[in-house]
Amino acid sequence: MTFPKDGRCRVVVERISPEIDAGRFSIKRVVGDTVRVEVDAFVDGHDEIRVVLLHKRADETHWHRQTMQALGNDRWLAEFTVDRMGHFNYTVEASVDRFRTWRHALKKRLEAEQDVSLDRLAGEALLSAVLSRADKTGRSKLTSWLSVVRDGSVNDLKELVVSADLLDLMDAFQEAEFPTRYPRELTVWVDRPKARFSTWYELFPRSATSSPSRHGTFRDVIDRLPYVHSMGFDVLYLPPVSPIGTSFRKGKNNALTANPDDVGSPWAIGAVEGGHTDILPALGTLADFHELVQEAGKLGIDVALDIAFQCAPEHPWVTEHPEWFRKRPDGSIQYAENPPKKYQDIYPLDFESSDWKGLWKALKEVFESWIERGVTIFRVDNPHTKAFPFWEWCIAELRKQHPETLFLAEAFTRPKVMYQLAKLGFSQSYTYFAWRHTAWDLREYLTELTTTEVHDYFRPNFWPNTPDILTEELQHGGRAAFQRRLVLAATLTANYGIYGPPFEHCWSAPREPGSEEYLDSEKYQIRTHDLDRPDSLRHFIARVNRIRRENPALQTDDRLVFHDVDNPRLLCYSKSTPCGANTVLVVVNLDSHNVESGFVQIDLAALHLTENEEFLARDLLNDQEYIWRGSRNYVELSPFATSAHIFQIRRRRHTTDGEVRFD
Amino acid sequence: MTFPKDGRCRVVVERISPEIDAGRFSIKRVVGDTVRVEVDAFVDGHDEIRVVLLHKRADETHWHRQTMQALGNDRWLAEFTVDRMGHFNYTVEASVDRFRTWRHALKKRLEAEQDVSLDRLAGEALLSAVLSRADKTGRSKLTSWLSVVRDGSVNDLKELVVSADLLDLMDAFQEAEFPTRYPRELTVWVDRPKARFSTWYELFPRSATSSPSRHGTFRDVIDRLPYVHSMGFDVLYLPPVSPIGTSFRKGKNNALTANPDDVGSPWAIGAVEGGHTDILPALGTLADFHELVQEAGKLGIDVALDIAFQCAPEHPWVTEHPEWFRKRPDGSIQYAENPPKKYQDIYPLDFESSDWKGLWKALKEVFESWIERGVTIFRVDNPHTKAFPFWEWCIAELRKQHPETLFLAEAFTRPKVMYQLAKLGFSQSYTYFAWRHTAWDLREYLTELTTTEVHDYFRPNFWPNTPDILTEELQHGGRAAFQRRLVLAATLTANYGIYGPPFEHCWSAPREPGSEEYLDSEKYQIRTHDLDRPDSLRHFIARVNRIRRENPALQTDDRLVFHDVDNPRLLCYSKSTPCGANTVLVVVNLDSHNVESGFVQIDLAALHLTENEEFLARDLLNDQEYIWRGSRNYVELSPFATSAHIFQIRRRRHTTDGEVRFD
Repeated sequence: MTFPKDGRCRVVVERISPEIDAGRFSIKRVVGDTVRVEVDAFVDGHDEIRVVLLHKRADETHWHRQTMQALGNDRWLAEFTVDRMGHFNYTVEASVDRFRTWRHALKKRLEAEQDVSLDRLAGEALLSAVLSRADKTGRSKLTSWLSVVRDGSVNDLKELVVSADLLDLMDAFQEAEFPTRYPRELTVWVDRPKARFSTWYELFPRSATSSPSRHGTFRDVIDRLPYVHSMGFDVLYLPPVSPIGTSFRKGKNNALTANPDDVGSPWAIGAVEGGHTDILPALGTLADFHELVQEAGKLGIDVALDIAFQCAPEHPWVTEHPEWFRKRPDGSIQYAENPPKKYQDIYPLDFESSDWKGLWKALKEVFESWIERGVTIFRVDNPHTKAFPFWEWCIAELRKQHPETLFLAEAFTRPKVMYQLAKLGFSQSYTYFAWRHTAWDLREYLTELTTTEVHDYFRPNFWPNTPDILTEELQHGGRAAFQRRLVLAATLTANYGIYGPPFEHCWSAPREPGSEEYLDSEKYQIRTHDLDRPDSLRHFIARVNRIRRENPALQTDDRLVFHDVDNPRLLCYSKSTPCGANTVLVVVNLDSHNVESGFVQIDLAALHLTENEEFLARDLLNDQEYIWRGSRNYVELSPFATSAHIFQIRRRRHTTDGEVRFD
Repeated sequence: MTFPKDGRCRVVVERISPEIDAGRFSIKRVVGDTVRVEVDAFVDGHDEIRVVLLHKRADETHWHRQTMQALGNDRWLAEFTVDRMGHFNYTVEASVDRFRTWRHALKKRLEAEQDVSLDRLAGEALLSAVLSRADKTGRSKLTSWLSVVRDGSVNDLKELVVSADLLDLMDAFQEAEFPTRYPRELTVWVDRPKARFSTWYELFPRSATSSPSRHGTFRDVIDRLPYVHSMGFDVLYLPPVSPIGTSFRKGKNNALTANPDDVGSPWAIGAVEGGHTDILPALGTLADFHELVQEAGKLGIDVALDIAFQCAPEHPWVTEHPEWFRKRPDGSIQYAENPPKKYQDIYPLDFESSDWKGLWKALKEVFESWIERGVTIFRVDNPHTKAFPFWEWCIAELRKQHPETLFLAEAFTRPKVMYQLAKLGFSQSYTYFAWRHTAWDLREYLTELTTTEVHDYFRPNFWPNTPDILTEELQHGGRAAFQRRLVLAATLTANYGIYGPPFEHCWSAPREPGSEEYLDSEKYQIRTHDLDRPDSLRHFIARVNRIRRENPALQTDDRLVFHDVDNPRLLCYSKSTPCGANTVLVVVNLDSHNVESGFVQIDLAALHLTENEEFLARDLLNDQEYIWRGSRNYVELSPFATSAHIFQIRRRRHTTDGEVRFD
């Protein structure tokens, strides 16, 4: 017959949220965020319990303790703030609360006018026991409460049983007897704020040139920084900048054979000039790259680099570390293939190599070399074709020295694989956004991303286009589609990006009908761009990004709420700051060719508005203002204008001088 | 820099279901049940994986291995059967499947008419490696497959890549390389079938008498067994049969002072005659009790006993083990109270006693003494006012020797507390059923009980009445309400019970208006019952219980489906066996006073019927038959008849001789 260690620990503590996969993974937050913790806790019988949230920075030795509040139905709540980058821990402890139990019984007996002499004795014992544990101020306060317990009038006791002061004292100094601790300590990973709110611009440095016959350089990109900055972007993401292989190099439009002057795909990494830590000579020198990072930094722009762990046949690793590659039965190195398709210009790395540790170390050093050069944001190419354990290890190792590093996972694959990468440490993730067109699809997808457990570890980064993705909607929807997709990306999620200048110039020609590839794609050739084209969306983009900067509601994926519209071609949603100081309501016409109108049924509570109050809806895209009242409001949007309203919602306020203002 | 143990274990295995609280608790099944296990499993890249369910009896040393089937979206499924009482374990292991990956690539290349000579070489290596691990038959089969791989025609290879035979061979003998095991082993507790399907009848032995002046005995109960059996009950549950305390004994109708001839409440346990393991002399002897258990057993009836862990002031423990009780500040023993209410006839046990181990042992011995006397079903009184760790320990300890024991938790309290008791080991639980009247309430509650995780550990036992619960609905609804509540209890859940004869005699008088207590309750006095009353529901009850016995669909809480009705006063639901061999459709009129009619919108798929098929609905309550077609069907139910249909649904079948039958 075996007994538990102490069968007198009667309180049950279970189902903490947030908790990912029984504590296997960290939840994510950014510096300054609040972590809202809930838990089930209860005890047998009628005793009162005290539930305490324990939290600390991972490197602290003692827990901070915070009494949790009852939410009803045996659920408890407390919050704590994470004030720096790195790991934090949290868990919950609960115990029978002798004082609260005593106080509750005394209160009931006082109400029923019963004799309380035994309650006085019990209370005296309780308070006396705590006295020796209290600090000086506490001792003095407790001593006077003790005399109330002993000799106070019934009215004094009635005050005592509702005193917050005494409760706080007892919470501070009463020792928990037979406490139950939640079986797991959970972890928060805290990033810098850009992990949650960032605005990305992708460009090909080779095309930062005025002539297709001259290869663009880092210095050209430096000249382009003011343009990028003027549109309001704060991450400049460059495709790989390393030497490009020549064997099986792809020609223009992904042709199987290249002409001698074809520049090849930047993702075919490695040549006689070097591998992942080296720079393609045509782009410039390491010093040039360094200057680019510096100059961008002055404008608040992070340079993000594309890390693609695959090797062209001439990559130095192929000869130096043949054991990092798989062999075919004929002894040759296995090129990439997805039968029957073959990609002979690329060798994948073998994560089952007997020297997997050596391989992992080398890959980590690739990141480290770029971190040394000032890059702390990485867009990782196809992370889902590399081993999951590697990512978990690599990101954790890098963050020990560099908690500021951010990783964007470019995995367009099955949902659970994408979510797994986020769990393992990726800071942001590409999504299915590009292919979600209808109001129903967008609403379903965003509801999953922002209201389920996924929201605690997966940060979506919405891209209307990428060098690989020119959707049918953009091919056929004209300028309206580009504007609409920009507004959706920029306001549905706090992280978004575009691939430009093709985006602002509304490039819509596919390589062939049915393809999502660009015709004459910059992936395989140098293109030029007239940045001053009168039809450019640059000013529209700048306005949208300014709206994002000026409205904190748009700087998080929290509190996204959809509002019903009686026209399925219109989508309406809002975001607001926790107490509603800033509220943005967006209405988008999802039809590229027709004016759409309808009635929006606004969830006023989500906008911190009451049923019959007048409020101001100011369209931040065109500065028009509307005075609305109530939940039902008419909207009409034309694809020939901007296809969207981005309303800032202001409540009506009566000033002392009788004027009416909205703020 | 630390590395994981083997970074080459690339497959992710997560989110097994069923799993309760990260494996903290067992799921429950009965002998013969199937456990359906699902899991997420996936790997980076394009490799195929093999996912294997591992399961075993807890006392087996080796796992049984079973290949899981892909459900799509990286979810996998397999089932296993639990064939005896006790604990079973299960978990999942997955690995990259070299053979499936090779086979898939070969298939694609064959379809694209590419060269496959390297595939032949790789396949040869794969099959040869397995050869040495195969048994004799396997070796012989593999050898001929090997020659196909080496020299077979393209057509031979096309057969090979779809061969189930070769796949089975490889599954049987291929060694998993770099396998990933789910981090936890999970547990099933397997009960005897009565845990899932039982029909309870509660009676007061003291009232099994013909005169209120003569105390009923166990021998009287033996005489009443044929009556109980004739109604189809298979559990006869008795309130406590131990000596009843005299101090502060409650009089008739819970009066604070008793008359000398008042018999007291059976729940005030303990007197000079003894405590929890002793028998109240007025009921008879231990030999009588033993005979009752024997005679009941001959009719397939289990005698279930009420275990109420609380003591009357004269209980032997009070003097022998004063340390098992809490002291008041004046040194007296703490009686039960819920301020301002006092229950001075009862001393609760102190689960925080310094001798908690001694107390636990004594309580366990109470169960053991009754198990020795042939009782293996216990109805536990107010388990939620005793420490949770005690129940987990006690039930587990008892089941080591007696896996056949069943425990019904009588906890009418907050949902999470009730669920916790079920998690800790209680086999069945009282519920909120008595207070769920409307179609919406019943549907919501049953959906929670039968379709959420709760279904894996909480077995509801529905009681229309108990000695403590005479609902308003029964007080005012007349005979219709009793019939309705019986049908609901008996067909919504597989475990149900009634407190009789008050139930079959439709007792409806409360102690006072607004009370749920019976007037002149048997809890405090002897009552007599004329079992042959012409208005008795005994024959109706017998019919309903026969329907339960004859329809396996009603013997489980699985596959309960609600069907929409256009009248909120009508509730419609069905249950069916896994493949639909037995299907029961129930329609209940929830109004006690009015005829209600409406159209039922039947979910035909849930009934294993197609859209335009004719089917027979045979009402098992009155043998009337209806031929229906399609999903929309009219029903009309009168409270002056039986208030319910219990249809057995039969499909139309054309026999060879041209006749039409339904079966």
